[in-house]
Amino acid sequence: MTAPSPKLDPLNTAVLTITCPDRGGIVAAVSQFLHNHGANIIHSDQHSTDPSGGTFFMRMEFHLEGLDLAREPFERAFANVVAGPFSMDWRLSYTTEPKRMAILVSKYDHCFLDLLWRKRRGELNVEIPLVLSNHEDLRRDAEMFGIPYHVVPVTKENKAEAEAEQVRLMQEAGADFAVLARYMQILSGDFLSSFGRPVINIHHSFLPAFVGANPYRAAFQRGVKLIGATSHYVTEELDAGPIIAQDVVPVTHRETPETLMRLGRDVERQVLARAVKAHIEDRVLVHGNKTVVF
Amino acid sequence: MTAPSPKLDPLNTAVLTITCPDRGGIVAAVSQFLHNHGANIIHSDQHSTDPSGGTFFMRMEFHLEGLDLAREPFERAFANVVAGPFSMDWRLSYTTEPKRMAILVSKYDHCFLDLLWRKRRGELNVEIPLVLSNHEDLRRDAEMFGIPYHVVPVTKENKAEAEAEQVRLMQEAGADFAVLARYMQILSGDFLSSFGRPVINIHHSFLPAFVGANPYRAAFQRGVKLIGATSHYVTEELDAGPIIAQDVVPVTHRETPETLMRLGRDVERQVLARAVKAHIEDRVLVHGNKTVVF
Amino acid sequence: MTAPSPKLDPLNTAVLTITCPDRGGIVAAVSQFLHNHGANIIHSDQHSTDPSGGTFFMRMEFHLEGLDLAREPFERAFANVVAGPFSMDWRLSYTTEPKRMAILVSKYDHCFLDLLWRKRRGELNVEIPLVLSNHEDLRRDAEMFGIPYHVVPVTKENKAEAEAEQVRLMQEAGADFAVLARYMQILSGDFLSSFGRPVINIHHSFLPAFVGANPYRAAFQRGVKLIGATSHYVTEELDAGPIIAQDVVPVTHRETPETLMRLGRDVERQVLARAVKAHIEDRVLVHGNKTVVF
Amino acid sequence: MTAPSPKLDPLNTAVLTITCPDRGGIVAAVSQFLHNHGANIIHSDQHSTDPSGGTFFMRMEFHLEGLDLAREPFERAFANVVAGPFSMDWRLSYTTEPKRMAILVSKYDHCFLDLLWRKRRGELNVEIPLVLSNHEDLRRDAEMFGIPYHVVPVTKENKAEAEAEQVRLMQEAGADFAVLARYMQILSGDFLSSFGRPVINIHHSFLPAFVGANPYRAAFQRGVKLIGATSHYVTEELDAGPIIAQDVVPVTHRETPETLMRLGRDVERQVLARAVKAHIEDRVLVHGNKTVVF
Repeated sequence: MTAPSPKLDPLNTAVLTITCPDRGGIVAAVSQFLHNHGANIIHSDQHSTDPSGGTFFMRMEFHLEGLDLAREPFERAFANVVAGPFSMDWRLSYTTEPKRMAILVSKYDHCFLDLLWRKRRGELNVEIPLVLSNHEDLRRDAEMFGIPYHVVPVTKENKAEAEAEQVRLMQEAGADFAVLARYMQILSGDFLSSFGRPVINIHHSFLPAFVGANPYRAAFQRGVKLIGATSHYVTEELDAGPIIAQDVVPVTHRETPETLMRLGRDVERQVLARAVKAHIEDRVLVHGNKTVVF
Repeated sequence: MTAPSPKLDPLNTAVLTITCPDRGGIVAAVSQFLHNHGANIIHSDQHSTDPSGGTFFMRMEFHLEGLDLAREPFERAFANVVAGPFSMDWRLSYTTEPKRMAILVSKYDHCFLDLLWRKRRGELNVEIPLVLSNHEDLRRDAEMFGIPYHVVPVTKENKAEAEAEQVRLMQEAGADFAVLARYMQILSGDFLSSFGRPVINIHHSFLPAFVGANPYRAAFQRGVKLIGATSHYVTEELDAGPIIAQDVVPVTHRETPETLMRLGRDVERQVLARAVKAHIEDRVLVHGNKTVVF
Repeated sequence: MTAPSPKLDPLNTAVLTITCPDRGGIVAAVSQFLHNHGANIIHSDQHSTDPSGGTFFMRMEFHLEGLDLAREPFERAFANVVAGPFSMDWRLSYTTEPKRMAILVSKYDHCFLDLLWRKRRGELNVEIPLVLSNHEDLRRDAEMFGIPYHVVPVTKENKAEAEAEQVRLMQEAGADFAVLARYMQILSGDFLSSFGRPVINIHHSFLPAFVGANPYRAAFQRGVKLIGATSHYVTEELDAGPIIAQDVVPVTHRETPETLMRLGRDVERQVLARAVKAHIEDRVLVHGNKTVVF
Repeated sequence: MTAPSPKLDPLNTAVLTITCPDRGGIVAAVSQFLHNHGANIIHSDQHSTDPSGGTFFMRMEFHLEGLDLAREPFERAFANVVAGPFSMDWRLSYTTEPKRMAILVSKYDHCFLDLLWRKRRGELNVEIPLVLSNHEDLRRDAEMFGIPYHVVPVTKENKAEAEAEQVRLMQEAGADFAVLARYMQILSGDFLSSFGRPVINIHHSFLPAFVGANPYRAAFQRGVKLIGATSHYVTEELDAGPIIAQDVVPVTHRETPETLMRLGRDVERQVLARAVKAHIEDRVLVHGNKTVVF
């Protein structure tokens, strides 16, 4: 949501994210360092769980034009001068090096197509090196957008091999993270640990309500007046990972589980797209089981 | 939300609500009956869980000016001619006979003040014969609005007697229903059965998430991006009664349990007021553990 | 949003819409007529601008299974027995005869793709016989969905001829109505009168604010904290036609005209889809410059 | 919305707001200065209209505990060391010195009571030294909260004198800003210039739609599907001042101008309270005819 300068190249920027123990002087040190090296700050956000000794989070976006160092020396200098002394967990990412997103799908097309449309429209600065599915259904859509579509059937019997194959394909494609766009299989802890990168899921309820399968039927039976969707990072415990984005729509007694599904699709795709965009732009910092979304 | 006629007396209307097994001819029979007796229909809503043999719900609001019968004969005629043949569960209420609402409070004033103010503003066509509390805190507010305020302290030891006293006071005051405006005690099944009338509660979360105490702390710990409120009829099972209204507000990582409480107050009072207004206007029909809200 | 019966064929239903002078007995007459002929009412809505002598609006959806007459005799009977006496302006439409929708586009794809996708998903019971554009840009998308794409370039000089050609193509294709999915040309009164059918537009602001071109720039300059979209029927006066649906999203000082456009796209497509769905399902009755949306 | 530290005194903090020409090094200089003097930053926000040479806005909230200087020397040092060199327009405010808010009302009580309730509940860190009205109606409410209520009747004839008297009373009471809580008189340019402090108004429409009187009637006639409210700073041009907050609620064809007013009240009071809270907490920086709301 930041306003890129019309005069500087909006594609030549970097984002610095920091998590570290809170104490005085962090902002001063970071901003002084960037200023000294000619970085032109576009936007800055910070948050601390507790200013008198908690965890400190920061996101700074800056132009690279003015920078007086190449990337490596710049990063080395930052590590020595700033990150070290404040024991920071930090990363720098460059808009010229978009993240690589693997998409896992089954048969539902709404979240999937929405991501492809937004990518094509330039809303998402991301590469999509591959789509993985356990069904053939969405091949034509993927290919229409020129994206390789791999089918890896998953059964009770072959689950371990299938997951190993999926991870292999994603790593081969250099995926930085994966998105489950209504992928209807539960990922094992092995999948998550061997892939070792963030996996974003869209759950079709306002978690923690209606954990697990068939949330629309559960919502119908409970007679709620709102249905929602939740996008979160996947952890080994089902539907319990850090929440990135949530939204809801009002519903009435007239709904059936079928109409709830239809209404829910619109929320699901919006919420997932919002979460993916935030992740791509390094706006999400995970802290324990919660997120800071700048 | 219906537009009362500027020419007819908006205070001389009646609301007919019907629940019955669905079959052909219900709308025809009811509307024919009303028409024959000169009732001028202002608004009509209907719903059926399944047109080919489910439950049928109807709400009809009409003017009494043109009516060719007095209330008793009119009701008798309806019972014989229409209600009987269709085995209807029905009721007629008259705007000139506002319901009598008992309010139970503890120390929080936001839902309470909002109800008193809406009553004063003429938004709620209701009488408020008494306020019951387990604390003195809100006496002055109640009295400012000219409403009797009774304190019945509740402890683990005296709970049964206290509830009996509360029920006695409400029945003495002729309360048609009760509203728990953030009343911080759990009502026993005995209370509900001996009072024998609807009790509306406001729960400070989007049920079924965060059932029970301290939902704001639970929401904070789970890191949700929305907090909400739910107004429902009270049943013996805690926080599990039929939901009347729900709403949410977006929140961020910046919130603390305290700021969540502040943000939540605005949703709570709006949702409770919406539910109370719907109940007062006979817009809510309960069906099993769900509601039809016309 | 109505719950179709699982037992009856949801595709074998009809919708009756009525506009007439308000007076007693309308609901009785219509429901009695339908009941007598074995029509199984699924859902019914009514509204009157003023029960003591205004305009009355009604929408009734019913199953055709039980009907004791063929369509023509049924419609003839209704015209004689009910519509005539109450001087009704009425229409009957059958779900088995979906409306035919022409789509006009220019270069923006978001509203266009959303409509094609909803049609494919079965959310919209509609035929799309053709897409008209003044540019080649979206041909591939149309063809991907198997829909004929006609380019009719429009310039100041050829506007009259171009519009005549567009109308000819739409009539040839038997279009019942047209949707301007961010079509960037203003339609002349001649276009509207010679086409003679409803035309639905999506305007990218919450009308009546920011009428005309560049609403996002205007919104940016005014510094509003909400941006919105409005779907309305097109009339000769620009952006002044009857409003069908509107929605908004919150925005902040961080937005630029460009990010407002991006955020606006999501609202535009949702609002247009909602309006188109309501029109297709005969939920929209126009009255003067306003709509009743059941 | 910031999380105050449980360990430090949340009431012993200060807010620094800055507006200045954008150039490198601002954040570094400010944060370095605060750090050097032992200020413990709780929260920081910044915005620039254009990083390559626009206007820069900043809000920093910090604890005063650690401060090594008294207020005056601290402010003097900041003026010399930081503000001067960067030609900053800046101000420091202290939570221990709450702003003084004058409220102007006429006969509507909803916005007025909501502000009094929030003040009593501790949501608004503000003093309310007086209420001004052109009617007696709300005296009892003001006095119930122990706030002096002054009636200054306003007529076409005495408008100038009346406004002079109002300004005199506000200045006598040391008002830092004024809030028009549905005050039904238009303030003259003389009033604004002689008072010389911010005046916040609540307009009952989503500006710029329905400028001027009777927006609900105008909204009814236009047949909009949303109604809203806008809180803005008052400028000489009617309803054209910088917008602080806006919100809307969906409405249907069933509404009358009267029900729109009722629904609107809930939005008006929420939006005004949000704007007042933001102003009190120095979250609003005015830039031309727009606001930055941190």
